[in-house]
Amino acid sequence: MDTIRVFAPATVANVAAGFDILGFAVNAPGDEVTVRKTDSEQVVMSSITGDNGKLPTDPQKNTATIVIIKLLEHLGIQQGFEIELKKQMPLGSGMGSSAASAVAAVYAANQLLDTPLSPMELLPFAMEGERAACGAAHADNVGPSLLGGFVLIRSYDPLDVVTIPTPESLYCTLLHPQIEVLTDDARKILRKHILLKDAITQWGNVAGLMAGLIMSDYELIGRSMHDVIIEPVRSLLIPGYDEIKQAAIDAGALGCSISGSGPSLFALSTSEELANSAGEAMQNACSQNDIESELYISPINKQGPKILD
Amino acid sequence: MDTIRVFAPATVANVAAGFDILGFAVNAPGDEVTVRKTDSEQVVMSSITGDNGKLPTDPQKNTATIVIIKLLEHLGIQQGFEIELKKQMPLGSGMGSSAASAVAAVYAANQLLDTPLSPMELLPFAMEGERAACGAAHADNVGPSLLGGFVLIRSYDPLDVVTIPTPESLYCTLLHPQIEVLTDDARKILRKHILLKDAITQWGNVAGLMAGLIMSDYELIGRSMHDVIIEPVRSLLIPGYDEIKQAAIDAGALGCSISGSGPSLFALSTSEELANSAGEAMQNACSQNDIESELYISPINKQGPKILD
Repeated sequence: MDTIRVFAPATVANVAAGFDILGFAVNAPGDEVTVRKTDSEQVVMSSITGDNGKLPTDPQKNTATIVIIKLLEHLGIQQGFEIELKKQMPLGSGMGSSAASAVAAVYAANQLLDTPLSPMELLPFAMEGERAACGAAHADNVGPSLLGGFVLIRSYDPLDVVTIPTPESLYCTLLHPQIEVLTDDARKILRKHILLKDAITQWGNVAGLMAGLIMSDYELIGRSMHDVIIEPVRSLLIPGYDEIKQAAIDAGALGCSISGSGPSLFALSTSEELANSAGEAMQNACSQNDIESELYISPINKQGPKILD
Repeated sequence: MDTIRVFAPATVANVAAGFDILGFAVNAPGDEVTVRKTDSEQVVMSSITGDNGKLPTDPQKNTATIVIIKLLEHLGIQQGFEIELKKQMPLGSGMGSSAASAVAAVYAANQLLDTPLSPMELLPFAMEGERAACGAAHADNVGPSLLGGFVLIRSYDPLDVVTIPTPESLYCTLLHPQIEVLTDDARKILRKHILLKDAITQWGNVAGLMAGLIMSDYELIGRSMHDVIIEPVRSLLIPGYDEIKQAAIDAGALGCSISGSGPSLFALSTSEELANSAGEAMQNACSQNDIESELYISPINKQGPKILD
């Protein structure tokens, strides 16, 4: 096999209380790559569509190429690859756009090399894509995009990543308000010190969320979807945030918070119908501030990357 | 039935990363009460043994009587009770001594009243015992003593308490160094502000601990038993702490930390044999500082209070 086409899913990092340690994957949106073996020894980005010319084509700077370069270095293999990247999701949306490209590419290349590494073993290379995209090799988007479902990053040093069982009937609503929030800005406005009291509230909710997910206790998931530390600060960057969130909950969602560093919001619901209702309500609330938005409804993605052909 | 004898178990609060939100019960030690209906309308402490005269006998101040007074007020029942309290565990040890007395008493009285309330419904009354004993109605000792197993206090407002499945082969080693650490002092030395970075490490470990417990992943439990916020401060009050902890881990325990606010330490192991080895090693390490200690080895208590006769 010399050519492969792979889809990798978008992801929601943080998941309310789980700042920097938790994420999950959705079925849509996501990115698609076509990776081809070539006779050269170069890894080349041959085309990018859907990015409005915003992404770098330099193989050392694009997330989809750097991950393959790092993988080849690790394996000690000299092999040329040509990559076509089809962006099917907005950049800078807080839905793990760079992660989806990185995961699709490294998964595809690993397949073409006869699968020397498992998905878990590919994770450090996918993380290098995040380093190229935003300066930090974080795993809370590439983890779930690569492994599917909910993924806990318990620790970075040493890297300790745990896949968490996904309750059967959980649906995700993703709303992308068409405004720009830079990841870097979203990180800079966070306080370096927090109150111990708030931290205790937060880790109570983290513990509740984990227990709710693993025991499929939907009410507990809902009761635990509160972020008292990050959301109060970052939501200031999203016009109408409180109204959009309230609209989701009033429509029957278990809870609603910021997806990654925003500006997207996500809600979790116990059925596709409720996820649709929440989405409609969120989009309506968002339009009150004259902000256009994109809406995605999806079950939790349990598979990770998918080979298309 | 006019008389009942009830045992309620000691508990380990905090459980490394889970400061103020998590606790579990052990089979031993624990406290025993004998509660008797009387013809008066008074709740009376008729005798206390095993406390070296340290506990108050004023019904409004003793944890074992105040919980019954609060229960009767809530039920709107006028009934006299006479309580004999047999302390079978050290006071101020960090093993939930006041909680065990409160739970045994309120559980016993509820039985004699033909069980109007479930154990979960008794929790707010048991918490009143903690308020009498230490000024704050915390639930991380009374919760597990009353409900058995691991108990998560997700939130106090509203009170949200979740019982967490207990892995089958988990054993607890409890070492009580015979020094005094006042709960109040142990709380006062904590910083009010902490680094967000440390909080993230902590809630990663809280999440790992919850996942490990519910999925019976013993290695994950061990990897998650790290407290980077409270333990580094409170352990300063316990001579030889680092050596005792290291001895437990070297002997094969999954992890070791402070029980409650100390001075007791607890370790978790995957067998009784390992729990015994850890205990021996911990006691040896403790004696290096010429400090006597009491040692308890026990499976996790899954039952909560036990009716003796």
